[in-house]
Amino acid sequence: MNSKALHKLSYGLYIVTSMKDNAFNGQVANSVIQISSDPASLVVSINKKNLTNEFIKSSKRLAVSVLSQEVPLSLIGRFGFKSGRDIDKFAGVNYMLTGGGLPYIAEFSLAYLEAAVIDEMEASTHDLFLCELTGAEVLNEGIPMTYAYYQQMKRGSAPQNAASFAPDAKERRNKMDRYVCSACGYVYDPEVGDPENDIPPNTSFEDLPDDWTCPVCGVGKDEFEKED
Amino acid sequence: MNSKALHKLSYGLYIVTSMKDNAFNGQVANSVIQISSDPASLVVSINKKNLTNEFIKSSKRLAVSVLSQEVPLSLIGRFGFKSGRDIDKFAGVNYMLTGGGLPYIAEFSLAYLEAAVIDEMEASTHDLFLCELTGAEVLNEGIPMTYAYYQQMKRGSAPQNAASFAPDAKERRNKMDRYVCSACGYVYDPEVGDPENDIPPNTSFEDLPDDWTCPVCGVGKDEFEKED
Repeated sequence: MNSKALHKLSYGLYIVTSMKDNAFNGQVANSVIQISSDPASLVVSINKKNLTNEFIKSSKRLAVSVLSQEVPLSLIGRFGFKSGRDIDKFAGVNYMLTGGGLPYIAEFSLAYLEAAVIDEMEASTHDLFLCELTGAEVLNEGIPMTYAYYQQMKRGSAPQNAASFAPDAKERRNKMDRYVCSACGYVYDPEVGDPENDIPPNTSFEDLPDDWTCPVCGVGKDEFEKED
Repeated sequence: MNSKALHKLSYGLYIVTSMKDNAFNGQVANSVIQISSDPASLVVSINKKNLTNEFIKSSKRLAVSVLSQEVPLSLIGRFGFKSGRDIDKFAGVNYMLTGGGLPYIAEFSLAYLEAAVIDEMEASTHDLFLCELTGAEVLNEGIPMTYAYYQQMKRGSAPQNAASFAPDAKERRNKMDRYVCSACGYVYDPEVGDPENDIPPNTSFEDLPDDWTCPVCGVGKDEFEKED
């Protein structure tokens, strides 16, 4: 059995949000699929350990923000690599409320879906929530973010990046070393810099400020390793 | 509520196969997701009316062929627009057997997964099968077929096609009309022809043989309408 076969499955990339009492939380998820159109229903899979799971079980409601390819890595990092137990994930984030009062990401989303949980199934580490659609709006034009594209973005190999840099990746690497975040897999590419955090292109890893942190997951420079 | 928001979700494209007694069947599906890695488990959603659903319920086992972008429309049509109640879908198809004896598509697949059903959940028109992985192999290199790419292929607007033709779609359309299959949405584009069926580029719809049928779903020319 070669479990790498599982890597060939395709997914979108979403932020699933919910509420408990008056608090909001949300997290990145790739397992959101439509099941039926009559009535319109979804399945969403959420890790049992996550706060969002607790909130969904409490309110029996959730919303899905369908992310655009334009979403910054920092937003994915905020909702994907932090816990709502430690921070208020919505602080400083441009969000709005669905008709039913659940938060959705207003910027960088193509659409939102709002749904009520009607059944659940346990799947070892995860719970599957079967939901009926209670609201849905198209927000922006654009290309949906896929899990595959996110992986490319994180590694500095997304098509839109690749086109704008030196054509020969080997040649680039000979100039300045790329560094990989051991926590989340993000690749710091000196040719690109970290534009989201005002690090210009052609900044070597060594020249990054000491307090620079991974734009995806927030760990420090000491958690990075030189790419092989 | 704008249900077009559901169209922003992303999916792969798969052929899900199963068996009953000594018979095989399979169908196209886009709802296959990994749920957990410990143990490796999947959810597969299948319409209750389909023969593949009956076979999965009988054998409690299924296999997933992860299709490549190179898959011909005729194969998708065979498994997606025909019923195993009418034809033997595997006749003439290059398939092999998983370790557990289930069929998978050998050509045009990047990988196969083989799984045993451990739980089920009913979702109006569909059943959700929660499965544990019992086998998996990577078969070919390539890019996985996505549902979005398939829609583009069917409409003659996939990137790989678009690049090789006249740059201005409007100009093309002025020359020869495109025709849309009212059954499955396939678009016959005279500039492209139907290479899978030996129809060369620059063949007008009118010049197609009378017995030409839709390469995806197999209906006749009379089921086509001129594109708006």
